[in-house]
Amino acid sequence: MSETPDIAVLQAEMGKVAEAIDKALERILPAVEGHEARLLEAMRYATLAGGKRLRPFLVLASGALFEVPTERTTRVACALECIHTYSLVHDDLPCMDDDDLRRGMPTTHRQFDEATAVLAGDALLTYAFEIVADPRTHHDPLVRAELVHAMAREAGAHGMVGGQMIDLLAENQEMDIGGVTRLQQMKTGALIRFAVDAGAIMGRATKEQRHALQNYAHDLGLAFQIVDDLLDVEGSAEEMGKAVGKDEDSGKATFVSLLGVDRARTQAQMLAEQACVHLETFDDKAELLRLLPHFVVNRRH
Amino acid sequence: MSETPDIAVLQAEMGKVAEAIDKALERILPAVEGHEARLLEAMRYATLAGGKRLRPFLVLASGALFEVPTERTTRVACALECIHTYSLVHDDLPCMDDDDLRRGMPTTHRQFDEATAVLAGDALLTYAFEIVADPRTHHDPLVRAELVHAMAREAGAHGMVGGQMIDLLAENQEMDIGGVTRLQQMKTGALIRFAVDAGAIMGRATKEQRHALQNYAHDLGLAFQIVDDLLDVEGSAEEMGKAVGKDEDSGKATFVSLLGVDRARTQAQMLAEQACVHLETFDDKAELLRLLPHFVVNRRH
Repeated sequence: MSETPDIAVLQAEMGKVAEAIDKALERILPAVEGHEARLLEAMRYATLAGGKRLRPFLVLASGALFEVPTERTTRVACALECIHTYSLVHDDLPCMDDDDLRRGMPTTHRQFDEATAVLAGDALLTYAFEIVADPRTHHDPLVRAELVHAMAREAGAHGMVGGQMIDLLAENQEMDIGGVTRLQQMKTGALIRFAVDAGAIMGRATKEQRHALQNYAHDLGLAFQIVDDLLDVEGSAEEMGKAVGKDEDSGKATFVSLLGVDRARTQAQMLAEQACVHLETFDDKAELLRLLPHFVVNRRH
Repeated sequence: MSETPDIAVLQAEMGKVAEAIDKALERILPAVEGHEARLLEAMRYATLAGGKRLRPFLVLASGALFEVPTERTTRVACALECIHTYSLVHDDLPCMDDDDLRRGMPTTHRQFDEATAVLAGDALLTYAFEIVADPRTHHDPLVRAELVHAMAREAGAHGMVGGQMIDLLAENQEMDIGGVTRLQQMKTGALIRFAVDAGAIMGRATKEQRHALQNYAHDLGLAFQIVDDLLDVEGSAEEMGKAVGKDEDSGKATFVSLLGVDRARTQAQMLAEQACVHLETFDDKAELLRLLPHFVVNRRH
């Protein structure tokens, strides 16, 4: 299924979005002169290192369902990418996962230093809210306030950061499949949920539409994470651009350690199909969103 | 001047505000069960450790100029205190200032661990935006969006975090009085500026009123920092509840190292008086704000 013509269409579109987001981030995070130059340099280093820009793609694709202008969705997509990037920068710190490599490049604290990495992460998180609250993001202040509120909720103690905390504690705890599912819905699922929700908020979606998209995001997020766990077992560090086999080494419970490789793969496929079912209400408009879960499940890195 | 009856009125009022903020923070940061309990525990530990609650006091006093209901200003005050607290938690980390003591208690990473301190800081910063964007903070979404935007700007790369970056680099650089002033306007001045601005935003202040308050905050912030530098030289660790003499040990340029103790003290007094001049437009309503700079300049810890 991975190389059908449809998937090629999706990949081309994702490539275009990634390029547009790279350019937008370059504009929105300009280099500066003066004493705080080093901070901006570190923020740019972490953010402009490329990546699939999956979350930005979701913001744009979800916004497109409601014909939200790309200028608007692009700003929210950049903000979300700032949050995603900050979480990676802090996650890579010696006191957290202690990683030296990210997307094949030295992690931010290795390229700069730990203090700069902490501050660059803090500044990226803060900047995400400045971007979203800016009138250029949306003329309606209610939409801006709702975006901020949803983004903070999904990124915070009961969303992404909470998931990171549970993940840290997981090394010393027995965890069943319910526990791992909850952890991952917070750690990686929360930002994916916000990405899809952002388009719905900007597009003034109906409750039913928003609910359908949330269910889609839920299944997509889990499928994404199961494949991440599979790649950690099966992928090479070279392909992945980061250390692999870390979960197994740490004895951490993952979808793969609990289900086994085959059942985990089947589960991911099932979730991908289930995700698409939630999109029925959107007809042909949702074609890209419909292709994405299959792409995610069949990705190699 | 420090123990005149007026100052006693201010101190009583500040005590009342501190108590109300402690209670509000206790409510807004409830302890939770389950796996992320440790994260909330660390957030509460850092935030509920007391302190003068100077920034919350400023939000409430500034809002009172425009008769903004206390329930509203209290929520913004709590959000701001979350940001102030996160900055202390990250600033105390081993890779930053490496402090063991804060307000006479073990710093968050000493009480918990480094990873938990990083995440608790991240979660507090994120939560601040969730609080402000919540409809309970203000019925008008434009006010909420403006508060978020101003808070992010003052707390971010060109505000507080930028100031922290410059401060870290200052140990290895010659810095003149202009450089130190700019650093401190970012590092500590920015949140003080937002505190005062928040009342003006919620109160729909005129441009002139907002401008007057910004000038007040500017002078107050500098006076506050000069006294901080003086206390670092003259205070004891016991009185301060944290390590002192650190600036001198690190050879960092401060107002005191550049101006000398006497001139620094005179400068702080001058700024305190100047701050009050900006309040003339508010008549008697600004009495507490007028007393504050004198209190700040004469504080012992």
